[in-house]
Amino acid sequence: MKVNGKECRTVWVDAEAAKQTANPASAGRGFPISMIDQRRLPHEFVIIQIPDHRATADAIRNMTVRGAPAIGATAAFGLAQVVAEAPVGEGREAYIKEGHDLLWAARPTAQDLFAALTEIRLAIESVDPGNPAEQAGAALAAAHHLSDRSVERCRKIGEAGAPLIEHGMTVMTHCNAGWLACVDWGTALAPIYVAHREGRKPRVIASETRPRLQGANLTAWELGQEGVDCRIAADGATGILMARAEVDLVITGADRVAANGDAANKVGTYGKALMAYEHGIPFYIAAPASTFDLDCPSGTHIPIEERPADELLFAHGRADDGTLERVRIAPEGANACNPAFDVTPAKLIAGLITEHGIIEANEAAIAKNFGPKNAP
Amino acid sequence: MKVNGKECRTVWVDAEAAKQTANPASAGRGFPISMIDQRRLPHEFVIIQIPDHRATADAIRNMTVRGAPAIGATAAFGLAQVVAEAPVGEGREAYIKEGHDLLWAARPTAQDLFAALTEIRLAIESVDPGNPAEQAGAALAAAHHLSDRSVERCRKIGEAGAPLIEHGMTVMTHCNAGWLACVDWGTALAPIYVAHREGRKPRVIASETRPRLQGANLTAWELGQEGVDCRIAADGATGILMARAEVDLVITGADRVAANGDAANKVGTYGKALMAYEHGIPFYIAAPASTFDLDCPSGTHIPIEERPADELLFAHGRADDGTLERVRIAPEGANACNPAFDVTPAKLIAGLITEHGIIEANEAAIAKNFGPKNAP
Repeated sequence: MKVNGKECRTVWVDAEAAKQTANPASAGRGFPISMIDQRRLPHEFVIIQIPDHRATADAIRNMTVRGAPAIGATAAFGLAQVVAEAPVGEGREAYIKEGHDLLWAARPTAQDLFAALTEIRLAIESVDPGNPAEQAGAALAAAHHLSDRSVERCRKIGEAGAPLIEHGMTVMTHCNAGWLACVDWGTALAPIYVAHREGRKPRVIASETRPRLQGANLTAWELGQEGVDCRIAADGATGILMARAEVDLVITGADRVAANGDAANKVGTYGKALMAYEHGIPFYIAAPASTFDLDCPSGTHIPIEERPADELLFAHGRADDGTLERVRIAPEGANACNPAFDVTPAKLIAGLITEHGIIEANEAAIAKNFGPKNAP
Repeated sequence: MKVNGKECRTVWVDAEAAKQTANPASAGRGFPISMIDQRRLPHEFVIIQIPDHRATADAIRNMTVRGAPAIGATAAFGLAQVVAEAPVGEGREAYIKEGHDLLWAARPTAQDLFAALTEIRLAIESVDPGNPAEQAGAALAAAHHLSDRSVERCRKIGEAGAPLIEHGMTVMTHCNAGWLACVDWGTALAPIYVAHREGRKPRVIASETRPRLQGANLTAWELGQEGVDCRIAADGATGILMARAEVDLVITGADRVAANGDAANKVGTYGKALMAYEHGIPFYIAAPASTFDLDCPSGTHIPIEERPADELLFAHGRADDGTLERVRIAPEGANACNPAFDVTPAKLIAGLITEHGIIEANEAAIAKNFGPKNAP
């Protein structure tokens, strides 16, 4: 999608790195990943270089990059970094395993992270371990494949979901499940972009999504870049807006969809789904194959990340003098509990918008579309 | 309740002012109201003097003082200011009417504002209009009576609600309905204070309550002053915390309770009530007589204040250098919708905690306890 009118992705590896990685003389040298520093949006648009896989794991952990599909693509490139960095000969295997495990532990909830690392690991294992350049090349090629396929899946999610959006409808979303959360296009926002390009002028209500304000910081920004009408609302405003019939449709992304259709997503999603159900407003989850976890029978089995209390005790933004600052909003010594995700029960989900079309949020439909035969 | 160990109210008029007002030679001179500047909490505890009724209307409008019962008491003192300031002779009646109407228009949702102004107006009308000192004295005496009665009602609400709180229970609340929202004691927090003093060690989860963060700023602060265990949570965390059975009871205040038991309160309350209902967690509203509006048949008739978008586009807090600052959190040019209240349907309310005890949230119980025979 566009930033200041130019096409951009959230995360990528330059062609130069790919060429270098394929060169046997470069074994053990690694390469950088490029990404948007999402912690500085919407105030500053900055592309940063992540020099090695440890810094990549940090970038996932500290949410420089966030959003399930974007985390997946970043981890894929990160594991390709690991293989390119790994010493030739003794210690190589251990280095790769350690790097893989570091990335695996970066965040616990988003299924895309584990799906991506598994996919790249299989690509590595399919190559002669005695040929480091080939191994590194295979890992990076697999990461590029995963990243490009993610873009394609998100585009299809956009096409599948767009018909839900009639002219002038108001769509509520939560957190950021736009292109910034993916490689491109987005999940929840992809249908909105498609409907917008088709001229149906959807209006969006973005709940701000405390504590990290991805709705206010990222969703409002990326919709603005594409010229989509967007209003920010407090997370607590969902009830009154729905009671006043000011919301026609809700679409959010997901960090993990269990085999029975229960879906983990950013904390606050469940409340929106329940309120939408109460008011007869359809609530959809948009997610690609990589977010489905068929080994996870239901939502109660999804690990919910607990993030630092400071996220709630402070707010970040741009001061009047233009500097980015954090301000303390809670009393000194205050405590906070900060679960980062919640689980929306399948019964509240009108449908899952996927690259295979809109499917029902139940075990049969999910197994049919994303079961072992169709993986990854 | 206590601030740094000393008893304090949110709003009051010094005895000196009362003495002066009763002196015929003081007619037309007015007097100041003292109040805590709640916009600077929890970072600075400052008592400010509000010199005249116009400044009092501003203080209500800009939320220097907030919370339905506190707004009521402030408006009562404000109308007493009007009468004390009013010129003797020509223009007196018009001045009083204008001042009354200015205070009346300060905020639209809290019933306590209108109940208080009506009560003080009746007190003024009961006195010879040709005796300015008597009129001013009667207005201020009525305001003091209202304020003291508010304290007594809140104390009774505390006693009525405290038995709901068993040892070690976790009580969730929203916004601030503590003593800062009243003159003293609070509504929703009063039962918690009573249970705490009785040694049952309730734990509180205070949802932070964007956009103005009264939960993080005020509830966490006042509970901390009294030594009550409190954790701040994101407004969106209600669902996961209830799903994990980490909440035993919900108590919030109200800005207006309609004749049928529907209750307007800070935006986000409705979502908590619905989620509590879904999980079988009792949800109570605590409110005194002054918050009940028997002329309002149901929640759909309660006017919902729309506040400025800037409340959502910025956050306020203390910067690392100690200064109070605001930071922009949304992109330049972003829009927001900011309804300040929502309406919780009576069917979701387990009971209304009042100075008459816990009553059912329905027309019959409300009419019996707060009908015309029992007013004000």
